[in-house]
Amino acid sequence: MNINGTPYRTIWLGKNGWSVAFIDQTRLPHELAILEIGTLEEAAHAIKSMQVRGAPLIGAMAAYGVCLGLREDASDEALDRGIDFLAEQRPTAVNLRWALEEMRHAVRNLPREQRVAAAYQRAAEICDEDVATNRRIGEHGVVLIEAAAGKKRGQTVNVLTHCNAGWLACVDRGTALAPIYEAHDRGVPVHVWVDETRPRNQGAALTAYELGAHGVPHTIIVDNAGGHLMQRGLVDLAIVGTDRVTANGDVANKIGTYLKALAAHDNRVPFYVACPHSTIDWTLDDGMSIPIEERSADEVLVMSGRTKDGKVVPVEIAAPGSPARNDAFDVTPARLVTGIVTERGVCAASREGLAQLYPDRS
Amino acid sequence: MNINGTPYRTIWLGKNGWSVAFIDQTRLPHELAILEIGTLEEAAHAIKSMQVRGAPLIGAMAAYGVCLGLREDASDEALDRGIDFLAEQRPTAVNLRWALEEMRHAVRNLPREQRVAAAYQRAAEICDEDVATNRRIGEHGVVLIEAAAGKKRGQTVNVLTHCNAGWLACVDRGTALAPIYEAHDRGVPVHVWVDETRPRNQGAALTAYELGAHGVPHTIIVDNAGGHLMQRGLVDLAIVGTDRVTANGDVANKIGTYLKALAAHDNRVPFYVACPHSTIDWTLDDGMSIPIEERSADEVLVMSGRTKDGKVVPVEIAAPGSPARNDAFDVTPARLVTGIVTERGVCAASREGLAQLYPDRS
Repeated sequence: MNINGTPYRTIWLGKNGWSVAFIDQTRLPHELAILEIGTLEEAAHAIKSMQVRGAPLIGAMAAYGVCLGLREDASDEALDRGIDFLAEQRPTAVNLRWALEEMRHAVRNLPREQRVAAAYQRAAEICDEDVATNRRIGEHGVVLIEAAAGKKRGQTVNVLTHCNAGWLACVDRGTALAPIYEAHDRGVPVHVWVDETRPRNQGAALTAYELGAHGVPHTIIVDNAGGHLMQRGLVDLAIVGTDRVTANGDVANKIGTYLKALAAHDNRVPFYVACPHSTIDWTLDDGMSIPIEERSADEVLVMSGRTKDGKVVPVEIAAPGSPARNDAFDVTPARLVTGIVTERGVCAASREGLAQLYPDRS
Repeated sequence: MNINGTPYRTIWLGKNGWSVAFIDQTRLPHELAILEIGTLEEAAHAIKSMQVRGAPLIGAMAAYGVCLGLREDASDEALDRGIDFLAEQRPTAVNLRWALEEMRHAVRNLPREQRVAAAYQRAAEICDEDVATNRRIGEHGVVLIEAAAGKKRGQTVNVLTHCNAGWLACVDRGTALAPIYEAHDRGVPVHVWVDETRPRNQGAALTAYELGAHGVPHTIIVDNAGGHLMQRGLVDLAIVGTDRVTANGDVANKIGTYLKALAAHDNRVPFYVACPHSTIDWTLDDGMSIPIEERSADEVLVMSGRTKDGKVVPVEIAAPGSPARNDAFDVTPARLVTGIVTERGVCAASREGLAQLYPDRS
């Protein structure tokens, strides 16, 4: 998508043809900084430190991490070790593991001297597939927004989203935001309530940034506000992304998603989850068995922002000495999810619903 | 309550016997600053700017504001004008209006020369009554915590609270935190999950501060986390304060309270609301008719904190140019509230429940 009129992806190959360039998302929205890395370890660090984040994008970065690793050592042992190391950087998003298995599959049976080229080819495909997948998610999801616009006789449709599942969470287009971009580009009047999404503020920092850069009307709200807005009829539908959907339709996503789903259910606001097939974990039957990452307390206690003179500094915001706990995700039970929007269409959040879209997998 | 071993109230008379001293809560938790004011206009500013906040405390400050106003002009006209001016500083909390009517009643039929002394006497009574009321709320509420401790066979009871309804929200003791202090002081093992409470962070800044100062174990969490903790069995009960309870038991409180009540209901976690009688608005039959204050977008977009060198600075945390909306309260329907804890006992959140405790008013 565009930033100040220039089209970007979140990740691409450097001019030398093998290094990996990407937008450093820990610097947004204060600064658009591009990093370029040359080792598997740097790719792992980019994932762990959330320089790249968003389930599809960390899959793409992991794929290129495998490429960088193979450039140094194309042995089976190095391949397996590198994949294990990359996989353990973030425990919750299943796309990471999916992309790594795709990479293993693409190179495992090749002679060593062919592995690097094959890996780069598969990583590029994973990126291009992500963009195509998200475009289809947008085309399926926009129908929901157009239907809401029809009911409102052309009045602006208010969509609530949590965290960032836009193009910055993917290679391009986004998952939850893809239908919103599609609607906006088609001229459907749409406005987005952007949950700021504490503790890392991906909503206020990333979702607001990318919607603003594309010209989509939006308003930042604190995570506490969504229920109140739904009670007052100010939300027509909610769309969020996800880090893992289990085979029964339960949804792991950024902490706080469950609370918004409860409020949507209580106020009869449709609550949709958008994701590519690679986010569906067919091996788990129950969302409560998804491992939930616990991150540093400092993410709760310290916040970064711009001072009056334009510097970006961290500030401590809590009572000195008080501890914090920082679970990064929660699980929304399938019963609270109106539908799952994938590249194949919209289905019920249930084993049967997913089976209709993916008869080959379920 | 104590700060570093020194007992404090939130508001008291200055050494001259007539000015009003108070803790500036916009400087906490970074600095314990005491302000002293001498005019009604300064009292109004303290309420508006949230140097004092919390429904009971703004009632107490408004009472002293009337005293300061009468010192300058004890006429009927000045009294009515001053009361109207103080009342309009914050629209949601009903204690503000309650305290002002108490003050009007205390002086209206007196000759002018007796009004100032009578006003100071009534304001002092309002403060002392608040402390006594909160002590009784603590004694009634602690039974709920002791019962939970009994069920857990002495294991630590985990209580979740939202915003600050501790002694900093009152003159002393607190409402929602009064039962927690009572439990802690009686040796019942209790731990508090402190919602940080965006946008103004009263949880991370004030609740964590006062619990820490009194030695009560606690952990700060983002507002998004409560539902997840309840799903995992890590919350035994929730207790919050309120700015206004309507006659049918609906509860207006800090934005986000409704989301926690939904999660408590979904996970069968008891959800209690603690308040004095002065928070009950017998004139309204439905929480949705409570006026909800909308505050400055800057409270969402800008946050204050301590830099490494100890300075407290404001920093911009969101995407530049993105707008924000800032509703300060939401309404939790009575059906989600397990019980209301007042100075007279614990009752159901319903017309019938409130009538049992207050047969004289309902």
